[in-house]
Amino acid sequence: MTQDTTDDAAHMAHALCLARRGLGNVWPNPAVGCVLVRDGRVVGRGWTQPGGRPHAERMALDAAGPLAAGATAYVTLEPCAHFGRTPPCAAGLVQSGVARVVTALTDPDHRVAGRGHAMLRAAGIQLTEGVLAAEAAELQAGFLSRILRGRPFVTLKLASSLDGRIAMASGESQWITGPAARAHVHALRAQHDAVMVGGATARADLPQLNVRGIRTPQQPVRIVVSRQALPPLAPQDADHGPLWRVEGTPADILADLGSRGITRVFCEGGGRLAASLLQAGLVDQMVGYTAGLAMGADARPFVGPTGWSQLAQVPRFDLIETKVIGGDLFHRWRAR
Amino acid sequence: MTQDTTDDAAHMAHALCLARRGLGNVWPNPAVGCVLVRDGRVVGRGWTQPGGRPHAERMALDAAGPLAAGATAYVTLEPCAHFGRTPPCAAGLVQSGVARVVTALTDPDHRVAGRGHAMLRAAGIQLTEGVLAAEAAELQAGFLSRILRGRPFVTLKLASSLDGRIAMASGESQWITGPAARAHVHALRAQHDAVMVGGATARADLPQLNVRGIRTPQQPVRIVVSRQALPPLAPQDADHGPLWRVEGTPADILADLGSRGITRVFCEGGGRLAASLLQAGLVDQMVGYTAGLAMGADARPFVGPTGWSQLAQVPRFDLIETKVIGGDLFHRWRAR
Repeated sequence: MTQDTTDDAAHMAHALCLARRGLGNVWPNPAVGCVLVRDGRVVGRGWTQPGGRPHAERMALDAAGPLAAGATAYVTLEPCAHFGRTPPCAAGLVQSGVARVVTALTDPDHRVAGRGHAMLRAAGIQLTEGVLAAEAAELQAGFLSRILRGRPFVTLKLASSLDGRIAMASGESQWITGPAARAHVHALRAQHDAVMVGGATARADLPQLNVRGIRTPQQPVRIVVSRQALPPLAPQDADHGPLWRVEGTPADILADLGSRGITRVFCEGGGRLAASLLQAGLVDQMVGYTAGLAMGADARPFVGPTGWSQLAQVPRFDLIETKVIGGDLFHRWRAR
Repeated sequence: MTQDTTDDAAHMAHALCLARRGLGNVWPNPAVGCVLVRDGRVVGRGWTQPGGRPHAERMALDAAGPLAAGATAYVTLEPCAHFGRTPPCAAGLVQSGVARVVTALTDPDHRVAGRGHAMLRAAGIQLTEGVLAAEAAELQAGFLSRILRGRPFVTLKLASSLDGRIAMASGESQWITGPAARAHVHALRAQHDAVMVGGATARADLPQLNVRGIRTPQQPVRIVVSRQALPPLAPQDADHGPLWRVEGTPADILADLGSRGITRVFCEGGGRLAASLLQAGLVDQMVGYTAGLAMGADARPFVGPTGWSQLAQVPRFDLIETKVIGGDLFHRWRAR
């Protein structure tokens, strides 16, 4: 690897860090990061702002001002090429006089789809594509899923005992996991566009479905899957996102959410909804918080009946990450 | 910490490594390790041999021969002071001419209980006690449990899906965890004196309950908790340990096993036995192997009904260790 490639990767990693800040608060837009580097020094940084604009490139160019001329721009996604409420970022980069652009991914949105890259090349800007593409695709899994599959990326959360139970038979569940794990759940909620639960859970628990204890620029949409009218959940306000009742098959529901612009859904149960998503093969990621107790078969299971009769039918997930959070075990798995 | 104390800890850690080799194959005796050090060099090493003798000190002294004179002996447990089939190790150390003895723990066995230490002191040998005592107590948890509580140390194994299931409704369970996790189970079995299952599991699965794929000096005792006659399990031979049928309350069963000299029991289910041990507060350690799939509530749970109605009744365990084994998540918990 030449020094240039190493530097490119390092600067792109920086841009990906910035991009991450937008997760959960920029839908329907992608969470993008941008770093401007001139003579080895960072002269501008940007990330997609809450609500989806300004875009990362605009923010970084504004920060750099005249220092952008001759710089290299590292962008985690192909700059946009279409005129929306703002001029396209590809045009902005050209106007700024950057000498080189490095991107991680081509934007699969049909309004971009290579046009951003083409616009840069046409202006004589040196272009390098595909730097840290895998890392960028992981970060952009929600946006890519919405564009390419027409549905959001779905994460299923399991906070359970060692034997997979989420409450006593009576429903008592406070608390199985510890405060650090529960705080971590709020941080994950903040990185998702929407938090989703089933109707039975909504009626039984009247959950807040919001981010508490940490600051977030935008509360997630609250989605309840229910054929019945919603229970008296909190109205939308500064601490509670919009409340959407949805119904239908899991595939229909997710397609609907995708068409509304949702890119990342965090599903927190209950058992029937979890089982129906798993059965439909619509769970992309599972995150587990396992507490050190075994509650027994009379306690409530996290996943309801699935109807699977053979082990070969059960979808498999690969372990991506594990760590200790407080006294609990955190683990993250991706659909194979 | 002076250099001497640092050296003492390092040599004792070495002796504990050696002691570990005896786990599972020296019952009813403790698994002890011994290192002889003269002028900073190891001149003898020993560990309790399969079946329980020779003892660690005897093996180390025989290895060192005349080099033992003037050496320091690091022993993970107080040397024995009673005449059994062999002369006591404390006497052996005195005869060898060692100048100093360092131990980790006092042997709580009423036949020793400080007499070994006293014998050494009376002979003018310099004695340091309590080096790496916590580590030694952890290693000797089985022996200490048998002596102090009259029952073996009990480890409960859970090899399950993310939602705590061990088989499909049909009983199909091959395989939930991967080959590396299954090999790890055999290594753990080898470190236990006995492997225990409930009668229903024994009848349904006709399990081998032995160590396969790795060499072990002694196969574990096979224990089946059952009021009924045993199913046709393999007879005792080179690959299968003794087969014991036991019945009664969990406390009675464990007291019986303790009186027979068993120090470490590895319980592998099924659900009813696991639940009864947990209910009785007799599980000292849980080891989990979690595979990346959620099987749903129609699959078989690892832990049967416990009858607990309140979360506060459920015993808690502390996370001690976690690691990735193959594609599965391994985790170990100790009773609080």
